[in-house]
Amino acid sequence: MADPAGVEYLRTAIGSSTADTITVAGRDLPSEVMGRLSLTELAYLLLAGREPTPGERLVLDAVLVSLADHGLTPSALAARLTYAGAPEAPQAAVAAGLLGAGSVFLGPAGDTAQWLWDTLAGTTEPDDEVLRAVAAGAVAARLDAGLRVPGLGHPIHKAGDPRTPRLYELAAEAGLLGPHLRLLREVAIAQEAATGRPLPVNGAGAAGAALVDVGVPPGSVRGFVLIARTAGLVAHLAEEAAQPIGRRLYEEVERRAGG
Amino acid sequence: MADPAGVEYLRTAIGSSTADTITVAGRDLPSEVMGRLSLTELAYLLLAGREPTPGERLVLDAVLVSLADHGLTPSALAARLTYAGAPEAPQAAVAAGLLGAGSVFLGPAGDTAQWLWDTLAGTTEPDDEVLRAVAAGAVAARLDAGLRVPGLGHPIHKAGDPRTPRLYELAAEAGLLGPHLRLLREVAIAQEAATGRPLPVNGAGAAGAALVDVGVPPGSVRGFVLIARTAGLVAHLAEEAAQPIGRRLYEEVERRAGG
Amino acid sequence: MADPAGVEYLRTAIGSSTADTITVAGRDLPSEVMGRLSLTELAYLLLAGREPTPGERLVLDAVLVSLADHGLTPSALAARLTYAGAPEAPQAAVAAGLLGAGSVFLGPAGDTAQWLWDTLAGTTEPDDEVLRAVAAGAVAARLDAGLRVPGLGHPIHKAGDPRTPRLYELAAEAGLLGPHLRLLREVAIAQEAATGRPLPVNGAGAAGAALVDVGVPPGSVRGFVLIARTAGLVAHLAEEAAQPIGRRLYEEVERRAGG
Amino acid sequence: MADPAGVEYLRTAIGSSTADTITVAGRDLPSEVMGRLSLTELAYLLLAGREPTPGERLVLDAVLVSLADHGLTPSALAARLTYAGAPEAPQAAVAAGLLGAGSVFLGPAGDTAQWLWDTLAGTTEPDDEVLRAVAAGAVAARLDAGLRVPGLGHPIHKAGDPRTPRLYELAAEAGLLGPHLRLLREVAIAQEAATGRPLPVNGAGAAGAALVDVGVPPGSVRGFVLIARTAGLVAHLAEEAAQPIGRRLYEEVERRAGG
Repeated sequence: MADPAGVEYLRTAIGSSTADTITVAGRDLPSEVMGRLSLTELAYLLLAGREPTPGERLVLDAVLVSLADHGLTPSALAARLTYAGAPEAPQAAVAAGLLGAGSVFLGPAGDTAQWLWDTLAGTTEPDDEVLRAVAAGAVAARLDAGLRVPGLGHPIHKAGDPRTPRLYELAAEAGLLGPHLRLLREVAIAQEAATGRPLPVNGAGAAGAALVDVGVPPGSVRGFVLIARTAGLVAHLAEEAAQPIGRRLYEEVERRAGG
Repeated sequence: MADPAGVEYLRTAIGSSTADTITVAGRDLPSEVMGRLSLTELAYLLLAGREPTPGERLVLDAVLVSLADHGLTPSALAARLTYAGAPEAPQAAVAAGLLGAGSVFLGPAGDTAQWLWDTLAGTTEPDDEVLRAVAAGAVAARLDAGLRVPGLGHPIHKAGDPRTPRLYELAAEAGLLGPHLRLLREVAIAQEAATGRPLPVNGAGAAGAALVDVGVPPGSVRGFVLIARTAGLVAHLAEEAAQPIGRRLYEEVERRAGG
Repeated sequence: MADPAGVEYLRTAIGSSTADTITVAGRDLPSEVMGRLSLTELAYLLLAGREPTPGERLVLDAVLVSLADHGLTPSALAARLTYAGAPEAPQAAVAAGLLGAGSVFLGPAGDTAQWLWDTLAGTTEPDDEVLRAVAAGAVAARLDAGLRVPGLGHPIHKAGDPRTPRLYELAAEAGLLGPHLRLLREVAIAQEAATGRPLPVNGAGAAGAALVDVGVPPGSVRGFVLIARTAGLVAHLAEEAAQPIGRRLYEEVERRAGG
Repeated sequence: MADPAGVEYLRTAIGSSTADTITVAGRDLPSEVMGRLSLTELAYLLLAGREPTPGERLVLDAVLVSLADHGLTPSALAARLTYAGAPEAPQAAVAAGLLGAGSVFLGPAGDTAQWLWDTLAGTTEPDDEVLRAVAAGAVAARLDAGLRVPGLGHPIHKAGDPRTPRLYELAAEAGLLGPHLRLLREVAIAQEAATGRPLPVNGAGAAGAALVDVGVPPGSVRGFVLIARTAGLVAHLAEEAAQPIGRRLYEEVERRAGG
């Protein structure tokens, strides 16, 4: 049955099993995926509906490794503090680390992707002049509304995020310097022109633009980058198990707060 | 300051930043990681302390893609139901999906890895005869204690998990059919001999054994497989956004429960 | 030390400990809180900075019990599915259940509270005529912007949410029928006048308005109602342990999806 | 349909709705719960199957307020760090704070409850002499197995947890100093006798024992105390919004880790 209307809504194109088969993305998992696709390629296949080209795979992995870790971030600290209380449930510590990937940290990759996408919507194969005009308009609209321009500036890398030029370079080499990466570059120029204050394209913004340019749907960028962050968090938990920071941090905080 | 003793405990070998550099795993992120390592390779580097060989990378990716998804699992359903209530926070839906990766689902990959590791500890380069004896003893110990033998049996793939032979084959081709994969095979034989009931090596168990054989520390296997599951969950959320199941499932449950 | 500037930021007014004392909200926990305050009263004290009056306590508890549970909601299902995979970590199952309390489910209590608060800001002791005008303006602004009016309508309780009249009654009896509850009533009237379609005040909206009227800061309403939901989820896990739904639901979904 | 066997498993005794009614714990929510039961009483009703007596309610609330907060704990810090990244999703920050309530922090209340319950199982109305013998045996069994004795000792309150005597006093005044609280007291005596080292009953252990004595099922104690912790976390988020610690803590850690 399922539904009064008789239509079964419980179906997915992602994966399924029978007693002797497992299918993922329409492919036989053992013979067509295992040994042939990397995790990055499978993740892309599931979101974009096709396997990435070698160039796209290169950009995808460059983005993922660029977002996997940045040391003792709030995300890593939350995971480590959680691990200190529940070492028997590492999945809970990883989940705690992911939960802060919102509007302030990591989420901006997806938010920039969506904003660039919406800004370009309907503009096919724009040349640099078109992009310049689009960027100027979009930046003005944000500033007029009292909003920050997505994808620009970084609290630590004030003079420039070292990931950004490398990502542009890799995308260019792969022939994948698409309209969203190019628009974002114009956005930074337009922002500086409008405010007099230079704010370089940050790594999260460049990552979001690059993902959209290689075909990741903008609405999935926020999720896609979580794959990278999970990898980083797992490494933090391994280090935490061997050389705990969480409990010592708590003890220091307690001591200072109580003083 | 930091600590009364003057020793700074807030340090990590995973990653760090300065105003114009980002370092991950001791390597300069833009020039030595981006464009050179895949996410899988970086995850391994962070856990194992060295980059994987091409054969190891192949096994790592085969394991990860084999665990990324199996359709509308409890994990995927929890993520989708969470998304139905908070579509603005996809990281919360992914986290909800990961939280069930415990002793029953997905966790067994890590639990099998740890058990095989502990069982073999101290046995270097065991030949098949040694492995057979070790397996018989370990299986007897579990059964005597009234415990299930890790890594065997599957509720759906009763006659054999299709991922298992493929993973053994890939490991063998890569010259990486190590002692833990080989031990697990003997464990299945010993279990059948002891109980008269065949329980084939399942995909999670084979995955755990393969990861230990290629050098993932056993205590990190539970975490490592979460990277794959995150990729699967992100795909479920993309599909959920386009074709919602969560809310309809809830409505059906509500209707049936209220009847 | 802590900070270069020498100012210690690690301090909280919520609680602290020494070797032989525990302080919560500025009170000695054993002698001034235990045996004297209920959890509801302590929660209010921590948010509002003072203990509630008996009438306020009555309204607070009425709100909390009204939001604790509604059967097999998406939240309860996510918790139960998570428990099926990780029964050893009940905190993970509760967390999974809370994670969906966003813009669609449960969150609307807080969103309505905030909207009513912002709408009334600066209007002190408004009489009914003022409220009527404020409501008309606020409803028109929402509808003009193509937005839903907060606090109105319910997918199941179409003709009226049974919690709403009871909450208004209890608040009135306690002399706490404040401007936000009264404004929300006018909002429903204004909405029907503007659209011709009656949408009664829902239980979440009334809850949010009542909490603001008794002094819970609007920005904390989203959090406050999670206390109630945690209580409901814990009950679901107890029932799930005795009479599992999660695994059976998954098995049914799997069967139907695979067919 | 539902099930092949035709039996509907999707049912719950916790709550349900129709178009014009909401039922919780078999009671009409508006008329029989709202205005009559506190959240604490409803939580107990859902777990114990009956409303608490006034004495039981007093003990329940004393336990809950004793566990709601202890300042800048790992749990509070994880919640605040998560909030720093995703202030738009407070439910995610609360969930992050709960996730560390495992075997090390907060979980011991439930673990002690279960251990005391298992230790006493089958012993009805034990007198002090019986409890003394049971305690001695149970303590010896733990120590022989190289395990810690549950419910004893505290890293900060080394000479005695200030909550413990107060909880015993309140339970005694209410006539609810039951076998589990009494057993735990004997356990502390037996442990000191066996090891020569005094370890006072800690607040979490006393809380677990008291909850079982008033009728909370031991398997639900771990969950029950999460209600209290949620209240504490919500207060931390309110304070964090007004006076941020999370981001500043991260910045300090970053600075120290990078040096």
